[in-house]
Amino acid sequence: MLRAERIWGGLLRLLGFVVGAAFVVCLGLLLLGTARVLLYAQEDDVEHLAAKRAYLAAMPELSQQHAPNLVLILFDDLGYGDLGTTGSRSIATPEIDRLAREGLRLTNYSSPAPNCTPSRAAMLTGRYAPHTSLTLIVFPDDSPLTWTAKLMDAPIRLPAEEITLADVLGAAGYRTFMAGKWHLGNNHPSRPIDMGFEHWLGVLYSNDMQPLALWRDEEVIETAPVDQSRLTEKYTQAAIEFLEQTKGEPFFLYVAHTFPHIPLFPSAAHAGESAGGVYGDVVEDLDRSVGRILEALDRLELADDTIVFVTSDNGPWFQGSSGANIRGRKNSTFRGGQRVPAIVRWPNRISGGVSDAMAMGIDLLPTMLELLDLPQPTDRDLDGRSLAAVLLEDAPSPHAALYAYAAGDLFALQGGRWRYRLRKGVELGSIGGLPFLPLVDRGPWLFDLELDPDESYDVSTRHPEVFARFAALAETQLALDESNPRRWR
Amino acid sequence: MLRAERIWGGLLRLLGFVVGAAFVVCLGLLLLGTARVLLYAQEDDVEHLAAKRAYLAAMPELSQQHAPNLVLILFDDLGYGDLGTTGSRSIATPEIDRLAREGLRLTNYSSPAPNCTPSRAAMLTGRYAPHTSLTLIVFPDDSPLTWTAKLMDAPIRLPAEEITLADVLGAAGYRTFMAGKWHLGNNHPSRPIDMGFEHWLGVLYSNDMQPLALWRDEEVIETAPVDQSRLTEKYTQAAIEFLEQTKGEPFFLYVAHTFPHIPLFPSAAHAGESAGGVYGDVVEDLDRSVGRILEALDRLELADDTIVFVTSDNGPWFQGSSGANIRGRKNSTFRGGQRVPAIVRWPNRISGGVSDAMAMGIDLLPTMLELLDLPQPTDRDLDGRSLAAVLLEDAPSPHAALYAYAAGDLFALQGGRWRYRLRKGVELGSIGGLPFLPLVDRGPWLFDLELDPDESYDVSTRHPEVFARFAALAETQLALDESNPRRWR
Repeated sequence: MLRAERIWGGLLRLLGFVVGAAFVVCLGLLLLGTARVLLYAQEDDVEHLAAKRAYLAAMPELSQQHAPNLVLILFDDLGYGDLGTTGSRSIATPEIDRLAREGLRLTNYSSPAPNCTPSRAAMLTGRYAPHTSLTLIVFPDDSPLTWTAKLMDAPIRLPAEEITLADVLGAAGYRTFMAGKWHLGNNHPSRPIDMGFEHWLGVLYSNDMQPLALWRDEEVIETAPVDQSRLTEKYTQAAIEFLEQTKGEPFFLYVAHTFPHIPLFPSAAHAGESAGGVYGDVVEDLDRSVGRILEALDRLELADDTIVFVTSDNGPWFQGSSGANIRGRKNSTFRGGQRVPAIVRWPNRISGGVSDAMAMGIDLLPTMLELLDLPQPTDRDLDGRSLAAVLLEDAPSPHAALYAYAAGDLFALQGGRWRYRLRKGVELGSIGGLPFLPLVDRGPWLFDLELDPDESYDVSTRHPEVFARFAALAETQLALDESNPRRWR
Repeated sequence: MLRAERIWGGLLRLLGFVVGAAFVVCLGLLLLGTARVLLYAQEDDVEHLAAKRAYLAAMPELSQQHAPNLVLILFDDLGYGDLGTTGSRSIATPEIDRLAREGLRLTNYSSPAPNCTPSRAAMLTGRYAPHTSLTLIVFPDDSPLTWTAKLMDAPIRLPAEEITLADVLGAAGYRTFMAGKWHLGNNHPSRPIDMGFEHWLGVLYSNDMQPLALWRDEEVIETAPVDQSRLTEKYTQAAIEFLEQTKGEPFFLYVAHTFPHIPLFPSAAHAGESAGGVYGDVVEDLDRSVGRILEALDRLELADDTIVFVTSDNGPWFQGSSGANIRGRKNSTFRGGQRVPAIVRWPNRISGGVSDAMAMGIDLLPTMLELLDLPQPTDRDLDGRSLAAVLLEDAPSPHAALYAYAAGDLFALQGGRWRYRLRKGVELGSIGGLPFLPLVDRGPWLFDLELDPDESYDVSTRHPEVFARFAALAETQLALDESNPRRWR
């Protein structure tokens, strides 16, 4: 290995140089960041917590109308292309495919962020993750990020003053139950039962984090490490038990599956069956879980009054498919980071088919508010828009533009056939790829998704008027994010 | 920005921690690497240099047969999907599309490496880049990597004892000329005119490196910085002048374009015309260049006796399209790093159409040797196989398996419908993504390209016999790379 050895040595020297330089830069940024942070104190916002309580307290009186139940099924890191109905030839998902045939498939739906925690924070609150203040990933209490956050007195969790879909529906008289992964805060006041769920069975964070215990409400019912091969089954069982106990009351069931986030643990009963390998096994387990929940809705004669919404929190990570002609995966700020399947069924109300109306997870809360004829909170902006007309009347998207944030930074805007990309930064790809030091930052790009769905060609000089329009939108948004980051009114 | 500020501070602290840890690890590796390197001395290999000379000296006598001319046109960082004939809706390439209609399009062709220098080293020698010893990128003489390499007495260049396509064809009586980017060594004995080209007009390395001067043979004819908007034109002009001067003698013309490698400089005459933006403009310039070369071949009545081969050195970098259903881009060790267009025309000999026979750039030299009925060198192995039967008789691939190397490491094997991926390492994505510290190394993966062309699902547990077969092939290759890295016989 003569030459290879020496070149390897050379490479390592260079590496040392690069890493050393990066270290110095980071140290500087760190000191700067720390100095700025110490200027602030950290508390839940008392004023808006009071406003939240008042808003929710008024709900029971306002909530007169017979409303649909909601079953929200969220997969973890499932890619757009991982379902039969979205083109997979490796994975069989007959139950979800049937749901798609009976309901509406949204082909231009994005999760609100390219990774777990911010995506969930935004979906449940109807606000972009930075507007909830929760842009990082919740790690276990005993991890360096959490220590650091504590040291900064800036715990990483959904603040108590945020209003979730469960808060609203619970206040409107729904029974609320969550099964699965929370990932919005390990401690009070940011646990599921603090955030609108009457009951919860699940895990606090992702299944690659340890210690991973199974909780029911305030209690650990299975100590770490849980048997992950049984998690899908346990969530499903708990979900069905909840459905059986609703007895005619309206309900909101949130099933936030742990898989196909790695590590992958297929059920013992079906391991090895999928042509998509272990990943496929795990997704086919999820499909069977959907089938069992649908079957329970049928059996309990709840199906007609129930909206079933199936989606994912972000694009696929190491395995999984982003679908044809889509650039990027989980953590990417290209579309593949956020483009996920979205299937919604409401028998007799939503016609079947496909809609390419631009939509995002932040639209769930406003949609439910409109369907229930309930007001939005008055002390804060919601970023989502009601999809009721899209779902019920095949209307076009309520959004002129949707904003893509990653790790708190505005990264892209999408509107009509265009996607405007503010900057590239450095994508770290499959290790986690959050926007990092902007080492390779060649300025804003404009993509024409009609000709170029996979974001390959910057056409900013060819369409300067479109470019300018999006640049202005971005500037407005960035200015607002600076002046009113939480979007209080 | 209360909360955002503190979290940012926390993130930076964590960053400091991570980078600090990486620094320590790198420092250790560096010392280790340096210590190993100092055990070796660096020289061109005298024995195999002599063998090369003897092999080439015997050519004139052996070379009896009327052979086709070769025009090899190599684009830099052009993606599989960037041509009309491969599905682009943004970029118009009528000339290359016509070439594809008149000739054969290889749909399962890979460049020999996912980045510039090793891809070119392998293509011109018919040997995988590590077997030529050139696995890194050639940087300008005045750059940290080059300093380091000098310090190690391990200059980064194609060693003198390697035999190039130009060496062989020149020895067999061809006139040889190169226009464009070399990137195989800045100094003797690794310049174009040392490596078989009688004459050369072009640049030493990539157009994002400075100082970038234009050379003709041993002379700088345009000092740095060259006017890049005229490079494509200058290469084209020089290529056509060469064709005009061949006057009936067989010839090898190698046009190694600078674009669409960034920075992008479209020609003044056509800037702004492409629906693919500036990237599209640059590719459309390249297409016009191909058209002018084809036109010259027609005008000079050389077309019938000339093989025209058009391809790219690796997948697309920041812009450009990998094509539908392909994972990865330049520098990636997924297929998108190496899957590139390949179009070959030889009127009256190669029937038009499409072939999905597995092929790679390393096959060019063996193919030409077979077409010329010339022997292979006897002191070394070639990795490439002749594609003559594929081209002339639509035969299946001569390869049982093709090996994918990046930065000197074996990363994947492809054979039939399978791709075996040894390890993932960390992909740094668009900043350069060479395999790095294997922080996330979850062991070998097997992909079923028939069901899963975009390498989304590891099916190693589902096809253990296939997995074992490829694992054994990989082990054999790794052992050989250890015991005989240069593949001397």
